[in-house]
Amino acid sequence: MVKTNNLYQYGTLALLVPGLFKGTLKLSDLLKHGDTGIGTGDGLDGELVIKDGTPYQIDGHGSVNKLDGNFTVPFADVHFADYKKLFDIESTMTPDKLEEKVMGMKDWQNTFFSIKLHGTFDKIKTRSVYKQEKPYPTLVDCAHKQHEFNGENVTGTVMGYYSPQLFNGSAVGGFHLHFIADDLSMGGHLLDFSTNNGEVSAQVLDHLEQQLPVNDEEFMKHDFSKDDIAGAIGEAE
Amino acid sequence: MVKTNNLYQYGTLALLVPGLFKGTLKLSDLLKHGDTGIGTGDGLDGELVIKDGTPYQIDGHGSVNKLDGNFTVPFADVHFADYKKLFDIESTMTPDKLEEKVMGMKDWQNTFFSIKLHGTFDKIKTRSVYKQEKPYPTLVDCAHKQHEFNGENVTGTVMGYYSPQLFNGSAVGGFHLHFIADDLSMGGHLLDFSTNNGEVSAQVLDHLEQQLPVNDEEFMKHDFSKDDIAGAIGEAE
Repeated sequence: MVKTNNLYQYGTLALLVPGLFKGTLKLSDLLKHGDTGIGTGDGLDGELVIKDGTPYQIDGHGSVNKLDGNFTVPFADVHFADYKKLFDIESTMTPDKLEEKVMGMKDWQNTFFSIKLHGTFDKIKTRSVYKQEKPYPTLVDCAHKQHEFNGENVTGTVMGYYSPQLFNGSAVGGFHLHFIADDLSMGGHLLDFSTNNGEVSAQVLDHLEQQLPVNDEEFMKHDFSKDDIAGAIGEAE
Repeated sequence: MVKTNNLYQYGTLALLVPGLFKGTLKLSDLLKHGDTGIGTGDGLDGELVIKDGTPYQIDGHGSVNKLDGNFTVPFADVHFADYKKLFDIESTMTPDKLEEKVMGMKDWQNTFFSIKLHGTFDKIKTRSVYKQEKPYPTLVDCAHKQHEFNGENVTGTVMGYYSPQLFNGSAVGGFHLHFIADDLSMGGHLLDFSTNNGEVSAQVLDHLEQQLPVNDEEFMKHDFSKDDIAGAIGEAE
């Protein structure tokens, strides 16, 4: 029986900040912990969306690729989907308005939850990055090299997680959202959208399962005290 | 089969900072997740040590009391013990020297682990607090009201956890240690010790299971952005 209140987080957002991009968990192992989620690939190789048990990569060219179980990740969040409908969108919605409306609906600023918006977007903007080569740059340097993609009248799913600010560093405090089009024509890390329709649903995750990559020597030896984790997450995520 | 790499954390250290001291989990439920650990009781009612599956409270008078399963906690850390010996103490050891030696032995500053020191302490100093009444004071105010206890030639166990600084706030970044005497004559939150003998052992916990008290309305409604979490943990813990 799967636990539907459980957020499984592999790695920490913090490890990406100084450029610890090595993939240390296979997707086949990650998917034991959830059928839905987001992440990035070995070498910061694109933005991942896991939907209905199938992992997709939006690569630096903007192409959406189905991934196999041997693909590895340095960081990912997954859970087993059991969303409850929150509301139908009936007027123009942007990411800021969505976050404001969702946060105003319940007292859930101190728990993790997943959010999903399926709809047709008048406009949607995403980003992704090419796979990086060693020596890896920092996360902020990569953010400066990101590629942006713009869609119009695209139907798809915005999904991701809200994490309490207390967990900023291990996770992204606040919302961390990705997008994937139903027809796989585009996707990526969500930057902006505008939509007049769609359904918003959510799933409370009161239980965080945080797995650290303790077999990765580079991670274990790294001195995070020199990294501006919160600053980098604010700039890059 | 129990997982011996798993640290189960109920609540967060942060929730104690503004005085959210209500016990929201029974010990009988906590003990499903570990036979060893530390915590505090409903109303910040003493310092807890869970040893070989038995929960003990060191109350504000310094008395060590065996607890029953209905006793509730706002915050606790537990795991299933499977310690590996690190070293025998052969010269005078203090908490600072212990932490320095342990951190120098392995690259484990970025993972959770438990540490245990069983020995006879020439001197040992602990603290605890009386159960607080509503409206609850802050954690820092309680720290100013703590009672200190001094022992000489006491045999017992110093035990607790190391958490990466990245998790300061949800946990105590660095070491968080409690003490309990073998003969239950004293115990509490560890402040200081001196010993020339004893055995130090440790257990790596690369997996954090963080359970949030989402059914506690007071926790869910609280605005932690106004609390100086790191400052209070530094002062009170």
